Amino acid sequence: MHHDFATRPTGGRVTLVGGGPGAWDLITLRGQRALAEADVILTDHLGPGEDLAKVCDLTGTEVITVGKIPYRRTISQDEINQIMIRRARAGEIVARLKGGDPFVFGRGLEEVGACAAAGVPCSVVPGVSSCISVPELAGITLTHRGVSQAFTVVSGHAAPGSPGCQVDWDALGRAGGTIVVIMGVRRVREISSALLAAGRAAATPAAAIHAGSTPAEAVVHSTLGSLAEDMRRAEIQAPAVYVIGDVAGLGFAARPE
Amino acid sequence: MHHDFATRPTGGRVTLVGGGPGAWDLITLRGQRALAEADVILTDHLGPGEDLAKVCDLTGTEVITVGKIPYRRTISQDEINQIMIRRARAGEIVARLKGGDPFVFGRGLEEVGACAAAGVPCSVVPGVSSCISVPELAGITLTHRGVSQAFTVVSGHAAPGSPGCQVDWDALGRAGGTIVVIMGVRRVREISSALLAAGRAAATPAAAIHAGSTPAEAVVHSTLGSLAEDMRRAEIQAPAVYVIGDVAGLGFAARPE
Repeated sequence: MHHDFATRPTGGRVTLVGGGPGAWDLITLRGQRALAEADVILTDHLGPGEDLAKVCDLTGTEVITVGKIPYRRTISQDEINQIMIRRARAGEIVARLKGGDPFVFGRGLEEVGACAAAGVPCSVVPGVSSCISVPELAGITLTHRGVSQAFTVVSGHAAPGSPGCQVDWDALGRAGGTIVVIMGVRRVREISSALLAAGRAAATPAAAIHAGSTPAEAVVHSTLGSLAEDMRRAEIQAPAVYVIGDVAGLGFAARPE
Repeated sequence: MHHDFATRPTGGRVTLVGGGPGAWDLITLRGQRALAEADVILTDHLGPGEDLAKVCDLTGTEVITVGKIPYRRTISQDEINQIMIRRARAGEIVARLKGGDPFVFGRGLEEVGACAAAGVPCSVVPGVSSCISVPELAGITLTHRGVSQAFTVVSGHAAPGSPGCQVDWDALGRAGGTIVVIMGVRRVREISSALLAAGRAAATPAAAIHAGSTPAEAVVHSTLGSLAEDMRRAEIQAPAVYVIGDVAGLGFAARPE
């Protein structure tokens, strides 16, 4: 409760904050302010969790880890929503810190909608999305003049063709452009096969990055045809991002330091 | 020259910094530090240009506007590269501030490559990309459980089917998922037509946002079939982002404040 009471609204409220890909200093200034103003922070495991105290002074701030560990549910979405709403209704300023950006596979709009339905004011602070920044920090651009004028970010959670999959992988493969897959470690073999079946060349450059932007970062350079095997050999685990497309083969001489 | 000389490397260097969509406080903490350390900042017109002094103390920092105004070239890419390299070779710390994220249609890798070829150390600080954050701040999520598991970000600079266009708009239209077009104000009629021809329904929700995240922000809600006409009527100018897909029709009741 270290914020400025003079400017404090009378009621509680919720702010969804994009925490960025993992490194604590890739949060925005606006996000930092939202955390500093909060009475309570509900945080995911992804994002700047352990280094939260580097982002702002947490004295007097309650921090609750509600986050989902990949492939393991620790607390349901509904429970998260209920905590946010209950705290805000009690007059508290709630920051909901999410990995990456809240509106990219983050169920952010669901949380916004739950607040709206409960009559709780809610705002959103965008974050640096892992889908762009994780390849970038590994030297991989998603677009490049003369090489790629488009990129598609896709959830790899559901296997291509499975009942839960709404992605037309065949059309996606045919559309050209860069493909970025997140939450796709377990399905890399099926996804690679689907793109090969759609006509993408096996020699198409590809790269996988685990824990991008953190000290645990690991990068594997490969090709579409070998990606699944190379990721298995390198023991790439979630969270990971992989990029398929000619851009993944650029910039080895020119990659940033 | 207000940085800490004790920790200053002996040579000059270049840091590409993603400035975010426009609002000055949507830059990252890492980006802020890179600007604070710089002897010289080369800045685009997009991003936190006018409010730069809110990001950090600019006393003793030279600021050069090299930016490109949409559809108007003020200074060539080669000239920008040469300024960066010349300044860094003279021992200066150069920050190259770019709108959005440097590796999303920002020619960032070209600048990294020019530095590498000149033997100048260069690093990259990711930014909040306009393609995600501009819709987000207007209440539009690019993904949503049960609605969209993928989104494609595409340059609308070249008209579909024109010699400069490398995008397969027909396949893209068939692939489903959310489509985000940037730099596409002039080509909205051709792009809409291409997606309709690919089988996307005219009633598909769409929205266009001008100058997202800034006081000049303007939002138009429409459908694929009416987008070009609605943007013309609302006099939507560059810089603008438009979103086509069912996600553009969500969240009117639930949009953030």
